[in-house]
Amino acid sequence: MTDGPLRATFAAPTPSLVTLAGGVGAAKLLTGLIRVHSPSDQLAVVNTADDTVLHGLHVSPDLDTVVYTLAGAVNPDTGWGLAGETWQAMDALDRYGGITWFRLGDRDLATHLYRTHRMDQGADLAAVTAEIAAAWGLELAVLPVTNDRIETRVTTVDEGEIGFQDYFVRRRHDVSVTAVRVDGAMAAQPAPGLIEALAAARSIIIAPSNPIVSIGPVLGVPGVREAVAARREAVVAVSPIVGGAALKGPADRLMRELGHECSVVGVARLYQDVAATLVIDEADSHLADDVEAAGVACVVAPTVMDGVESAAELARTILKCTGVTRA
Amino acid sequence: MTDGPLRATFAAPTPSLVTLAGGVGAAKLLTGLIRVHSPSDQLAVVNTADDTVLHGLHVSPDLDTVVYTLAGAVNPDTGWGLAGETWQAMDALDRYGGITWFRLGDRDLATHLYRTHRMDQGADLAAVTAEIAAAWGLELAVLPVTNDRIETRVTTVDEGEIGFQDYFVRRRHDVSVTAVRVDGAMAAQPAPGLIEALAAARSIIIAPSNPIVSIGPVLGVPGVREAVAARREAVVAVSPIVGGAALKGPADRLMRELGHECSVVGVARLYQDVAATLVIDEADSHLADDVEAAGVACVVAPTVMDGVESAAELARTILKCTGVTRA
Repeated sequence: MTDGPLRATFAAPTPSLVTLAGGVGAAKLLTGLIRVHSPSDQLAVVNTADDTVLHGLHVSPDLDTVVYTLAGAVNPDTGWGLAGETWQAMDALDRYGGITWFRLGDRDLATHLYRTHRMDQGADLAAVTAEIAAAWGLELAVLPVTNDRIETRVTTVDEGEIGFQDYFVRRRHDVSVTAVRVDGAMAAQPAPGLIEALAAARSIIIAPSNPIVSIGPVLGVPGVREAVAARREAVVAVSPIVGGAALKGPADRLMRELGHECSVVGVARLYQDVAATLVIDEADSHLADDVEAAGVACVVAPTVMDGVESAAELARTILKCTGVTRA
Repeated sequence: MTDGPLRATFAAPTPSLVTLAGGVGAAKLLTGLIRVHSPSDQLAVVNTADDTVLHGLHVSPDLDTVVYTLAGAVNPDTGWGLAGETWQAMDALDRYGGITWFRLGDRDLATHLYRTHRMDQGADLAAVTAEIAAAWGLELAVLPVTNDRIETRVTTVDEGEIGFQDYFVRRRHDVSVTAVRVDGAMAAQPAPGLIEALAAARSIIIAPSNPIVSIGPVLGVPGVREAVAARREAVVAVSPIVGGAALKGPADRLMRELGHECSVVGVARLYQDVAATLVIDEADSHLADDVEAAGVACVVAPTVMDGVESAAELARTILKCTGVTRA
């Protein structure tokens, strides 16, 4: 089994815009960002602590959500997976009593087959991700935060510590959580070029992703939080909490259960050391002073993205904050 | 990720009939054997030297061909794979330039996903195979010849030594071969219960599979050839060569290129130490005396199976030879 002259490693470029990203919310924002700023001058740094091995295959949910969304291929009903997907493999797996609670579509499976094959060949996750992004025609660079294994582990009241996908997909995050940790974080290295990209960026954007289980693991890779904090004045975060609730996923419940105020103020406190500016939704405008009291400049704008137009509008707001474009 | 109380190991039963099997030809014969003798009193011992790891998945072509065929689920046009299969994953893999010369159908993928998952959990191949066979409703026991990795390697004139699937699928066995060896054979152990099953069987059948790359690796697992030879009087082989040619696959060319006479006589010589009887096709009746001169009793019968009826008729002929049923 041989392949062409594919690279085994990949180092991030140093573009003007670097976005720290989880899955669905980040992917939506990125569809706006590539509308208002050259995609080839952008880097998305994506959480990999949700990654899992299923059936021997390396699955990277957030990376795939970002790539599929930017390629215009994502399932619009779910925000993840591929549009027009078929499910023959999962349906057939039911015969064996195999793992089907994490549904892998037939075409999506190809991504995991390819990733696993290339990593078995010795390619690192960043290199494979670059190949996958290129195959989908992306001009924006997509980078896993690390090539090393990091894995979010969730301590639940009823079952003790379980894996992230067990919590997120199998239990539909409908359980009480007492702790979250990222296994492997201390030993992980930032992906090649990441620290340099953060240092060189004109602006760093923290996407409206889950602060605990999406952005948390990104900042938790040793050196990343410090590199972002060193650029604090150039960092704009977008609150994933609107009107006290997460638009999607368990960010609100997790924040509450882990002792954070579940509001834009709670988000501001979580990001106070790394971001100079927080964009909050108009629904939370009455909390703008409290955000500023937490030491973070506050920008009020529509943040709920229901399509590319609203994502682009939010992207314009962000870029105005950072001076990449002028008000 | 948890599973039910599945067994991690599997030991073969000791039924009356044990069939040594490759893929398509053996599977056809087995469809006849289960028509004329109780399937629950039969064991198929299947070659695993064609097994390969593709995209990180453990693929066992001959095991799957036997199971799918006996389940009535095989693609009748090819003799392998599943009927009514779809190819979304392979088509999507083309986007990445992934390995698609070995085509894995969407539903077939489920088998490899399950096998890989269970082996990652520590189950041995025999245990997983028993689970897969049970899931398809098979009563006949299906056993890999070994739980250990064995891999047929083919030395070609043009490219040196290559893997079996590289030779068989990618090159469509359309290359000249100077040697065949089974990597890992010396260190392999027979699957649990296999030697006992061979000792206890009323009759052992060598299916009309490729003597070099299907039956060869089965007999090549240490202890198997000796255990079969010890039962030589109870062993009936069916010639895969009819009129000097293989009905399917490269058996004829391989036999020639490796210095064997490509005829039923050549087959008789290859099996002379392990089989007392060889069933040859009516087309080769003029060679019956030469077969007997090679030290093997010769039975002439229709051996070309074009359906379950002809497979059952061949099965009846075999059982008459062995005394399991009387003429």
